[in-house]
Amino acid sequence: MNTAILLVSCPDRRGLVADVTEFIHRNNGNILDLEQHVDREEGVFFMRVEWDLQGFAIPPEKIEEYFHTLIGQRNGMRVNLHLEPAVKRMAVFASHLPHCLYDLLSRAKSGEWAVDVPLIISNHEKLRHIAEQFEIPFHALPVTPETKAKQEARALELMAQAGIDLVVLARYMQVVTPAFLEAYPNRVINIHHSFLPAFPGAKPYHSAYERGVKIIGATSHYVTPDLDQGPIIAQGVTPVTHRDSVEDMKRKGLDLEKTVLAQAVWAHLRHRTIVYRNRTVVFG
Amino acid sequence: MNTAILLVSCPDRRGLVADVTEFIHRNNGNILDLEQHVDREEGVFFMRVEWDLQGFAIPPEKIEEYFHTLIGQRNGMRVNLHLEPAVKRMAVFASHLPHCLYDLLSRAKSGEWAVDVPLIISNHEKLRHIAEQFEIPFHALPVTPETKAKQEARALELMAQAGIDLVVLARYMQVVTPAFLEAYPNRVINIHHSFLPAFPGAKPYHSAYERGVKIIGATSHYVTPDLDQGPIIAQGVTPVTHRDSVEDMKRKGLDLEKTVLAQAVWAHLRHRTIVYRNRTVVFG
Amino acid sequence: MNTAILLVSCPDRRGLVADVTEFIHRNNGNILDLEQHVDREEGVFFMRVEWDLQGFAIPPEKIEEYFHTLIGQRNGMRVNLHLEPAVKRMAVFASHLPHCLYDLLSRAKSGEWAVDVPLIISNHEKLRHIAEQFEIPFHALPVTPETKAKQEARALELMAQAGIDLVVLARYMQVVTPAFLEAYPNRVINIHHSFLPAFPGAKPYHSAYERGVKIIGATSHYVTPDLDQGPIIAQGVTPVTHRDSVEDMKRKGLDLEKTVLAQAVWAHLRHRTIVYRNRTVVFG
Amino acid sequence: MNTAILLVSCPDRRGLVADVTEFIHRNNGNILDLEQHVDREEGVFFMRVEWDLQGFAIPPEKIEEYFHTLIGQRNGMRVNLHLEPAVKRMAVFASHLPHCLYDLLSRAKSGEWAVDVPLIISNHEKLRHIAEQFEIPFHALPVTPETKAKQEARALELMAQAGIDLVVLARYMQVVTPAFLEAYPNRVINIHHSFLPAFPGAKPYHSAYERGVKIIGATSHYVTPDLDQGPIIAQGVTPVTHRDSVEDMKRKGLDLEKTVLAQAVWAHLRHRTIVYRNRTVVFG
Repeated sequence: MNTAILLVSCPDRRGLVADVTEFIHRNNGNILDLEQHVDREEGVFFMRVEWDLQGFAIPPEKIEEYFHTLIGQRNGMRVNLHLEPAVKRMAVFASHLPHCLYDLLSRAKSGEWAVDVPLIISNHEKLRHIAEQFEIPFHALPVTPETKAKQEARALELMAQAGIDLVVLARYMQVVTPAFLEAYPNRVINIHHSFLPAFPGAKPYHSAYERGVKIIGATSHYVTPDLDQGPIIAQGVTPVTHRDSVEDMKRKGLDLEKTVLAQAVWAHLRHRTIVYRNRTVVFG
Repeated sequence: MNTAILLVSCPDRRGLVADVTEFIHRNNGNILDLEQHVDREEGVFFMRVEWDLQGFAIPPEKIEEYFHTLIGQRNGMRVNLHLEPAVKRMAVFASHLPHCLYDLLSRAKSGEWAVDVPLIISNHEKLRHIAEQFEIPFHALPVTPETKAKQEARALELMAQAGIDLVVLARYMQVVTPAFLEAYPNRVINIHHSFLPAFPGAKPYHSAYERGVKIIGATSHYVTPDLDQGPIIAQGVTPVTHRDSVEDMKRKGLDLEKTVLAQAVWAHLRHRTIVYRNRTVVFG
Repeated sequence: MNTAILLVSCPDRRGLVADVTEFIHRNNGNILDLEQHVDREEGVFFMRVEWDLQGFAIPPEKIEEYFHTLIGQRNGMRVNLHLEPAVKRMAVFASHLPHCLYDLLSRAKSGEWAVDVPLIISNHEKLRHIAEQFEIPFHALPVTPETKAKQEARALELMAQAGIDLVVLARYMQVVTPAFLEAYPNRVINIHHSFLPAFPGAKPYHSAYERGVKIIGATSHYVTPDLDQGPIIAQGVTPVTHRDSVEDMKRKGLDLEKTVLAQAVWAHLRHRTIVYRNRTVVFG
Repeated sequence: MNTAILLVSCPDRRGLVADVTEFIHRNNGNILDLEQHVDREEGVFFMRVEWDLQGFAIPPEKIEEYFHTLIGQRNGMRVNLHLEPAVKRMAVFASHLPHCLYDLLSRAKSGEWAVDVPLIISNHEKLRHIAEQFEIPFHALPVTPETKAKQEARALELMAQAGIDLVVLARYMQVVTPAFLEAYPNRVINIHHSFLPAFPGAKPYHSAYERGVKIIGATSHYVTPDLDQGPIIAQGVTPVTHRDSVEDMKRKGLDLEKTVLAQAVWAHLRHRTIVYRNRTVVFG
């Protein structure tokens, strides 16, 4: 089934839902799914609507323009239109730890996600064998303070060549620069191995152990220039006890990290996320 | 703030969201919250919409009629309109176990819920002291096969006198009859102490222990004539281990039961539930 | 059944389990439950063992002395012996919010816990009616910077008179002083309405909303002079979405807070906790 | 570190813990971890103890014999001794669905588990490419009622040749016979895609959808001749709503299945499980 997914945010006012749904209905679209949300404190309206394009009066490539002209413009709307099905192109960045990389590639390869992975980048050689297993080009771009700018430029070049839509940092242990993020705004997803905002930065499992918490977590978020401060997409937790050493927490964290990262990537791929004011609306 | 909450279900067709939102918008209503759902397999449309009545063109007491005439009738809609704020009148049925009764009364008394409890009915005297603590009329109506019909008639009479909107069975260990349920269709909520459909009927913790499950649960549902088969509103679970005896499971179950029952009652009070085909749509 | 529960911690060395179990066995005690734990990093040994006193060779009132002389002393053990069944005397401190107070009193009153509550203290009059409902002496001790020392002395005096074993801060919105804590070392339990160490201090739900987290939590801990820094006994979490306002989070937090607090108090009452290095061992 | 793990079950009597720990201590073993459990209803004692073999007086290959002679025999103990570290040899059976297979192989390959996978068996060709990716021998043994006996014999032969210790059915859609199970008693682990005992047999997600449950689950258990009735090792759950179609449940179930299966396999590999009376003791 060919569908359109429209993501909208704008200042709240009366009649927005009626306007949007009327636009779809008048042009013979059948709404499959609709969610809206109003942030009352900020007075912001958010909406996600998906409709069947069969028999829709406006040609797919013109929908965004028509919507903008007829509805979006006069309501000050930020609009994203996505035509489905579409196969997204995802770059994966990794370092030493294989679990998230294996998990992402398994989902791509098995068809669980409609995604191609044309590119894996790492600051180490260590996981090259996994890329080879999955027959995906692998680029080791080791980073030192001196080479960081050059290597990031190289990464951006490779990503541009590969037509990347989405970047996933799968326990990539490097901070990316604002320049990098500007090339992929709200399209770089990271997994942090703690229940943010608890334990940002390095060695969160050590800190969790030291603090004696009874639950550990993982957080997936869009990356912003502020380390571990970006808008959260998904979080997960698992119980621990005094019996769990730091090593046990790391091991339990593996499953948590890959599951939470996958939830976030899935939400992004299904166009369920809207970022505003460093928070994320994640529809149904 | 005075609001209207409209719950709608009908055969799915194009334009339903546009029709309903247009009705609200045209009459100057400001939508506060809207959720819709389509069961594609059955072709049924569901919607919950809440709007601010300030400045709404149709007087509150006429909204249901107008909506029916203008929209509902021609779309074959089942419609429920609720004007808020409103204080619901809830009867609680209990037997021996005090935890759910205490919990419900605490929520009512503290104002956590906008609900009055004018009536507690039990088949035993045992919990009368709790009713007295909370200064609520308590009626012990012991039930035997011979007296069941008479006692249930008495309960219905008391409930009618008290103007009851909602009946909560708080570990009430008696089966209620179809006649009782007809008086309060989709308005009798039960808590069953298992993760249904596992372990229906009596002594589910014993059965869970025997089967060696690693998670126990509780299920709150609308009561139907088929025991423990009614449409599920909320479920919750908690882990157990081989160390947990049947008594431990019962103890852990106390918190689960009261929390899950409260979730279900809250969803009902907020008019978030629509029942169809023995399932429950529970909006956000 | 009369039982003894022994809690032990000491520097780890070989043979400690054998020594302790041999002591019990030789004197004809039947072990009902045994758990041990070794913190390898710190080299500390912990143990909890419960045995049936029927036929035990040493009179109950002499067990601690004998154990100390024969085993504890030469191993540098910190020892706590508890004879069961015993009814503990618990003071509850509250302020404005009734949910934890209702929940604790319901558990005490219904016999779910073997505990007496001879004393409720608050810095406000607001919840007096709940104390009256449960027929428990209530003392309003309003606190200002000027009266704090005097009022806390008064509270300590009341607690001494009432023979208090355990103090529960049930959303009591005052910091207690080191002097207070010294009177009840590792016996003052607090509930904090966040997933510590995230969001310590005031207004954690506001902070959680601002940060856009997808899970909120509650933490119960022994109180130490450092605010919200004490050893954690229990934590719980519940999911939230962008739809949840600060008020929604507060409401969802009510159930979390009372459940997590109850878990912590239960663990303490069952003598399952040992504190060391600002962490808590919580046995099964 | 070289360690011994002893798993014991026997009729309960006084002094068992003392006997076992004394045996280890007397021979200069340092206990690293000890858990015991008594099923009071059945009067059965269970114990798992792990100790450091450094300086242990009895040679590893003689420990089981000495223990049996000195302690086990006279207490009617069922004993299993495991020397660690050891790399187990695991056979994986699969059919069409790749997620559990990918997950198990990733864990084996990355060293998360100390396990070799020398053999993958399937009743279909479909997943051969995954075996090739991981360079593991793959045998397609299609099964019809006529060929079942022959193909199972072939599987057993392959497993014997490969020196298999443990068999994992990773969504293998075939019932295995009692003869098969006798060759690997309590060593065949299955993942069932429901929260057993709810929804045994085929198409559990369809049944869950039909029943309108609000939580779905997965169950990993040792396989016995009674389909989906074997002793449960691990269970997990995830919430669903009315919005989740059968397809959505299947998708959410993927992560649940692979996580729960991995928990069970990990517990088995760490020798944390003892089966009795169709239940499983799963130590810490």
